[in-house]
Amino acid sequence: MENFAFYNPVKILFGKGQIANIATEIPADAKILITYGSGSIKINGVYEQVTASLSGHNFLEFGGIEANPHLETLLKAVELIRSEGIDFLLAVGGGSVVDGTKFIAAAVPFDGDPWDILAKQAPVKTAMPFGAILTLPATGSEMNTSSVITKWETQEKLFFSSPLVFPRFSILDPETTFSLPLRQVSNGIVDAFTHVMEQYLTYPVNAPLQDRMAESILKTLIEEGPKTFADLHNYEARANVMWCATMALNGLIGVGVPQDWATHMIGHELTALHGLDHAQTLAIVLPNLLTVRRDRKRQKLLQYAERVWGLVDSTEESRIDLAIAKTRDFFEVVGIRTKLSDYGVGLDVIPLITDRFEKRGFVALGEHQDVTPKVVEQILALCA
Amino acid sequence: MENFAFYNPVKILFGKGQIANIATEIPADAKILITYGSGSIKINGVYEQVTASLSGHNFLEFGGIEANPHLETLLKAVELIRSEGIDFLLAVGGGSVVDGTKFIAAAVPFDGDPWDILAKQAPVKTAMPFGAILTLPATGSEMNTSSVITKWETQEKLFFSSPLVFPRFSILDPETTFSLPLRQVSNGIVDAFTHVMEQYLTYPVNAPLQDRMAESILKTLIEEGPKTFADLHNYEARANVMWCATMALNGLIGVGVPQDWATHMIGHELTALHGLDHAQTLAIVLPNLLTVRRDRKRQKLLQYAERVWGLVDSTEESRIDLAIAKTRDFFEVVGIRTKLSDYGVGLDVIPLITDRFEKRGFVALGEHQDVTPKVVEQILALCA
Repeated sequence: MENFAFYNPVKILFGKGQIANIATEIPADAKILITYGSGSIKINGVYEQVTASLSGHNFLEFGGIEANPHLETLLKAVELIRSEGIDFLLAVGGGSVVDGTKFIAAAVPFDGDPWDILAKQAPVKTAMPFGAILTLPATGSEMNTSSVITKWETQEKLFFSSPLVFPRFSILDPETTFSLPLRQVSNGIVDAFTHVMEQYLTYPVNAPLQDRMAESILKTLIEEGPKTFADLHNYEARANVMWCATMALNGLIGVGVPQDWATHMIGHELTALHGLDHAQTLAIVLPNLLTVRRDRKRQKLLQYAERVWGLVDSTEESRIDLAIAKTRDFFEVVGIRTKLSDYGVGLDVIPLITDRFEKRGFVALGEHQDVTPKVVEQILALCA
Repeated sequence: MENFAFYNPVKILFGKGQIANIATEIPADAKILITYGSGSIKINGVYEQVTASLSGHNFLEFGGIEANPHLETLLKAVELIRSEGIDFLLAVGGGSVVDGTKFIAAAVPFDGDPWDILAKQAPVKTAMPFGAILTLPATGSEMNTSSVITKWETQEKLFFSSPLVFPRFSILDPETTFSLPLRQVSNGIVDAFTHVMEQYLTYPVNAPLQDRMAESILKTLIEEGPKTFADLHNYEARANVMWCATMALNGLIGVGVPQDWATHMIGHELTALHGLDHAQTLAIVLPNLLTVRRDRKRQKLLQYAERVWGLVDSTEESRIDLAIAKTRDFFEVVGIRTKLSDYGVGLDVIPLITDRFEKRGFVALGEHQDVTPKVVEQILALCA
């Protein structure tokens, strides 16, 4: 395996009723801003649990953080925090709220235009402390340092990462996910699955524990994911999916191994240009990326076919074909369509995307840095 | 799965040449005490790497920490630290040196008799900061909060744990393990394997990801462990075993699941009374504990038989028998004998051990708290 550094100080409180413990995780004298999204937390009981737990604390709230959180919205929170003297943030929601709160945490003390943190990868030198209450298992943001933010004005979706934006704590109560719209449950499963694939489906470097841990998450998502649809109040299935989603992107399965992320990079552009859900873009791109890259990813595709899908018979080529087909079928089974045409997007999107990569100086993507704009074109052509 | 809290802020630097990075992990103005064991680090080049990396730092050293570190030795380090104004510890060695350094870190600022931290489980309110350079993969101490210390005078081996004794960082360079005596390589593999079993081989609570991650470590140890003997400079095998040992006891596979630890508790007494290596005691006790507890552990034994050893044919009883036999065989294959008589220990040890449990108020051990002294007796009787 390759050399690596691993560090993840996020405290996880997992299970029923854990929201009642937030008060002990936040300094008693902190002035808190609760950040949230479209307001579902005010309907499903989460907001009441949070405010009850914060009784005696001083807090304000800031709602309206969108899916693919907008820079423009987040900057309003930055202004509020500066004027109100807030000193602790509490993100309550899914990956977008947590990502948005990470950006806010870095932007408040930032000297200059906060967009530079994303556009120029300006270094984050300090950040506000924050905790998270996760209500949508998907992105893994609750236990990592990454954040993806969209500038609405220019339709750009960009990424930053800093160890200063680890949440101080994250609360994962599977019961908060019972009331999620099915589309978001589907999205979460596909997002977590693809996070694992980006770190696993590359080439072998003799890292058998990392491989097996990645396969553990994939197999558990395949087994537990569909159960969440069969019974919307299946606590165990929700809990298992939730823990899978966190483990999929807290850094652990990616230590000492090559990583791909081309599916995400291509997908981000589809979201930025056509507003598709993040997970929808992954479900469209991943199977076709595996098809186009089958030679470069050959050994891992065969391992994936055997260990995750139990495919051992027939020729190597048909095992690879079948593993890719099963991946696509799994996405469809958990409720995500896998073709651009399912979302009314035509192939005229291809030059827009490759142009964007070239303009942004991304010469090539992927674990070998050889997914050139030409290869992106081939992948997207199969997504029709 | 059960509710859980997980928190592990240890920074891991893994791979060749990582010792060169310690200087950046320790404050430049710290007065450091390097703690180590019998002095092998002065023969195998590790000491030179450490002191070269600390060039410009102010440091002293304290050697002679034994396997099963002695309270009496560690208290000498405590005295030295207090008189010299040391403010950072650097443990260089295996689990005993790291465990011993954890105790020193807690004992230096402790108000009262430091033995109370172990004997009375007196709360640790503050501890000195320390880092570790691991040279023997086995105990997992490099990424957890636990420490086991022996009081030589009374032959007592006791345990304490505190989040204040997480190492600030741990360096894992597999090359430092090339020169280990084979007995220690063997011990490390069996220790790590048993750590997983204590957290896995209990009863099902619908925690499929934790189960699969535990099985991932077991399978990797079974596959990679023997390779370290075939070629003493097989870097990849050493690296894989080293990462398995850390992952076996950093808390992650144990979240939300019941845990046993009876094998360890019984084993500690064998070490305290007869000086057996820790791993030798585990190799003796575990297979017989599984035999005596086969009904209480039935479902997990069947899962272990199938997933770890590939046993699917024949009756349930014979699959369980065979899985236990394969466990014992594995310990023998990696070089650890599995009977008390192999070490010249007779069954007269049994009443001494059960008496000690009763005196210390351990009414019963194990995941169901029903491993009474009577059951311990049954287990040890099979160990002959």
